[in-house]
Amino acid sequence: MKDALLHTPEGVRDIYGDEIITRKNITERILGEFHSYGFKDIQPPSFEYFDIFNINIGSAPSNKTFKFFDRENNTLVLRPDFTPGIARCYAKYFRDEQLPVRLCYSGNTFMNTLQHQGKLCERAQAGCELINDDTSGADAEILALIINSIKSTGISSFQIEVGEVEFFKGIMEEAGCSEDEIIRIRELIDKRNFFGLTEYVDKLDIPVNTREALRNFDSFFGGVEMLDKAEDFACCERSKEALERLRKVYKAISYYGLEKYVDFDLGLINDYDYYTGITISGYTYGTGNPIVKGGRYNSLLKNFDRDCPAVGFAIYIDELMIALMKQDISHEIPAEGALVIYEKISQEKAVSFSQNKREEGSSVFLIRKSARHSVEEYISYAKDNNKKSLYYFDEACELHEYPVD
Amino acid sequence: MKDALLHTPEGVRDIYGDEIITRKNITERILGEFHSYGFKDIQPPSFEYFDIFNINIGSAPSNKTFKFFDRENNTLVLRPDFTPGIARCYAKYFRDEQLPVRLCYSGNTFMNTLQHQGKLCERAQAGCELINDDTSGADAEILALIINSIKSTGISSFQIEVGEVEFFKGIMEEAGCSEDEIIRIRELIDKRNFFGLTEYVDKLDIPVNTREALRNFDSFFGGVEMLDKAEDFACCERSKEALERLRKVYKAISYYGLEKYVDFDLGLINDYDYYTGITISGYTYGTGNPIVKGGRYNSLLKNFDRDCPAVGFAIYIDELMIALMKQDISHEIPAEGALVIYEKISQEKAVSFSQNKREEGSSVFLIRKSARHSVEEYISYAKDNNKKSLYYFDEACELHEYPVD
Repeated sequence: MKDALLHTPEGVRDIYGDEIITRKNITERILGEFHSYGFKDIQPPSFEYFDIFNINIGSAPSNKTFKFFDRENNTLVLRPDFTPGIARCYAKYFRDEQLPVRLCYSGNTFMNTLQHQGKLCERAQAGCELINDDTSGADAEILALIINSIKSTGISSFQIEVGEVEFFKGIMEEAGCSEDEIIRIRELIDKRNFFGLTEYVDKLDIPVNTREALRNFDSFFGGVEMLDKAEDFACCERSKEALERLRKVYKAISYYGLEKYVDFDLGLINDYDYYTGITISGYTYGTGNPIVKGGRYNSLLKNFDRDCPAVGFAIYIDELMIALMKQDISHEIPAEGALVIYEKISQEKAVSFSQNKREEGSSVFLIRKSARHSVEEYISYAKDNNKKSLYYFDEACELHEYPVD
Repeated sequence: MKDALLHTPEGVRDIYGDEIITRKNITERILGEFHSYGFKDIQPPSFEYFDIFNINIGSAPSNKTFKFFDRENNTLVLRPDFTPGIARCYAKYFRDEQLPVRLCYSGNTFMNTLQHQGKLCERAQAGCELINDDTSGADAEILALIINSIKSTGISSFQIEVGEVEFFKGIMEEAGCSEDEIIRIRELIDKRNFFGLTEYVDKLDIPVNTREALRNFDSFFGGVEMLDKAEDFACCERSKEALERLRKVYKAISYYGLEKYVDFDLGLINDYDYYTGITISGYTYGTGNPIVKGGRYNSLLKNFDRDCPAVGFAIYIDELMIALMKQDISHEIPAEGALVIYEKISQEKAVSFSQNKREEGSSVFLIRKSARHSVEEYISYAKDNNKKSLYYFDEACELHEYPVD
C-alpha cells in the first residue's frame, strides 16, 4: 500500500472521537441561539456558478477558490463563504417580501490556500443574515446574537470589535484621495502601521483636517468614550453620521445588557468595498484569528437586482474549537449506555435485552463474545468507549453485570 | 443582472423553509438510532486524493466524480460516497483495535452525472460502518438498524431486499465462466431480463446444474421460504453457504422482531466486485430509487493494508424526503414563539421583553415597526412565519398582544 492512501489532502482533516461530539454540541448550541432570534435555516448548494463569487461581493479572490467544471464546461466554485449564495436565495425566493427576513446556516466553506499558510482549506462556519432591516436595532441584535452564541459554547472571555467603514470613507471623500492612495492608506491602517501612515499622509496634498484625522487613527479604538474623541476629527457629515450610528448601536446593545463585550475600532476597514456600515471582528484567548466576522453590506443585494440592506456574520467553528481547547473549557462527555457481549447460544436474549435498553434511551454496543478475548478485555473496551456498564450473556444464557471503571 | 445569477448549477438546489426543518428533523432521528446502537460520529473531509476513490473499492467510476487540483497539482475528488474515506480513517486511527468498531456519518456526497439523467449531483447521505465483526449477528444488526432508522422518519411501508453475492459467485465458479460471460450474465440479471438470460446461458458450454441454476434465477426472490427452493439449485458449497448465511441472518432479525420488513433477492448482485456477502437495497412508495443501499465488503480494507471484515449501509436522505412527501407523511411544524414589533421610543422595553421570552425558550422575531406597514400586515407576517403571537410596543411604550392564527 502506498502510505499516501492513509493521508488526507493538505489543509483538510478527519474529525472524530470527542472532538466531533464537542463540535456538534457547540454548533447545535449556536444554532439554538440563532433560532431563538427567529433566524431560519437555509442551505445553498456546496458549489455555485463562478459568477456568484466573481461579482464584487466580498468573497475570496478567485485564485483562492477551488474551481472545477460541470459536463457543459461551466466553471463551478466550492463556496468560499455562504453569504453570496444566501443573497442569491433571498433574491430568488423572498423578492416580494417587504418585511425583514432572517436566514441562518451552518456548514463547510472551502479556500484553496497555500499550504505554508497553515490555514485549513475546509472550514466550518455558522452564521446569520438579517436582510431588509436598516435600523441600528438590527445592528445591535446581530451583535447581541453573536455575543450570546459565543457565550453558549462556554467561552466567557472574549471581545467584539466594532467599526464603521463610513467614518473612514468620509475622510477619504473629504481628502479627495485617489484609488491608489486609498489602497495604500487602508493597507497601513490594516497592518496597524501608524508610524508609516503618518509619514505617508504628511506627503499627501490633502486638507489639514483630513490629515489630522489620519494622523490620529491610532487612537480611534477603545470603549464608547473613544467615539467622543474621534468626533473632534470627524471632518464631514458622513464621518459624523458613522459615529452617531455607533452610539445608537451601543445604546441598543446596552438594552441587552451586553455592552461590556463590545469595543470600538474605527480602523476595522478590511473588506472596505463590501461593507457599508458597521464591521465586526471577534477575538478570544487561544487563537490569533478572529472567531467571528461580519458587518453591514447594504450594496451586496444590488448584484442580484434587489436593492435592500443587510447585516450578518459568520462564526468560525474551527477557531472556536481551538479556543475551547486552549482555554481548557471541556464539554464533558459523560459515560453512557452499555456494552453487551454474548455467547452464540444466548444471542436471542442478548438482542432483546439490548433492544429494551435502546428503547429506554440507552446507547448499546452489542458484540458476540470472541473466545480470543477475556471479559476483562471487554470491560476495558467498554471503558474506552465511554460505556457505563458491561453485560455478559454466558453459555448458559445467564446474565452477568460488570461495573466499568 | 444576468438572470443566470439567480440559478444554482444543474443538479444542485437550495433547501429552505419547511423542507429544511423536516430534513434536519429526520436526519437527527436517524442519527439518534445510529447512536443508540453505539455508532460513533466521524467526519472525513469533503474531498480526498484521487487514489482513495480510484482503487477498486466500489465507489463511483472516475468519470462520474468532480475533480480539481490543489496548489501542488494533486488531483482531488469530491467524495462520491463516504465509505472509502471512513475505511481510510479506520486504517489510520483504529488499526490496533482488536474489537469491532462502529462508525457513522451524515453529510453530502457529489456525483458529476449527466443532466438528462435528472439525478441530483449533491446528495445527502447518513450511514454506518460496522468494522471487524464478521458474524451473521452483525449483518442482522445492520438490517435492524436500517429498519428502525427508516421507521423513525415516519415511513411504515417499506421493504428491505437482502441478497448474498456468494450464491451467484459460487455458480460462476462452478460454471467456469469467463470474465466477459460473467459481466453479460450480471447485466441480464441486473436488468431482470430473465428471458434473455435463459437464451444466453443455453448457448454456453457449462455444466447442466449451473445452467439450471441460472435458468431459474427469476424465482430466486421472495420470503425466507424461497431459500429452500434456491437450495435445490445451489450447485456448490460456496452457494450453499451463502444460503445458510441468509438463514442465520433471517433468524437473528427475527430476534429483533423485524423479519416482516425483510425479503430476499439473490439477483441483488450489483457492485459485485465490491461486496463479499449480504447485499442490501431498500424501497418504499413514492420513489423508484432505493432509499438505502449497503452490504458486506470484507475486502475493502485490504486496500488500506488492514485485512478485516466490514458491513455497512447508506440511507439516501433526498429519496426519503421524496417518499415522505409523496406518502403525505407530514412532520408538522407547530406554530411557536412570537413576533415583537416596537416603535423607536419603546425599543428598550421591546428588547428586554424579547430577551426574557428567548430565555424561556421561545423564538422571538424582533422588528422595529415601520410606518409603512399596518399591525394587520405584521399579524399576517407572523402567521407566515409560523409564530403563535404578535406583541406590539406602541408610541406610549404600552404593550398590546394580538392573536395569530
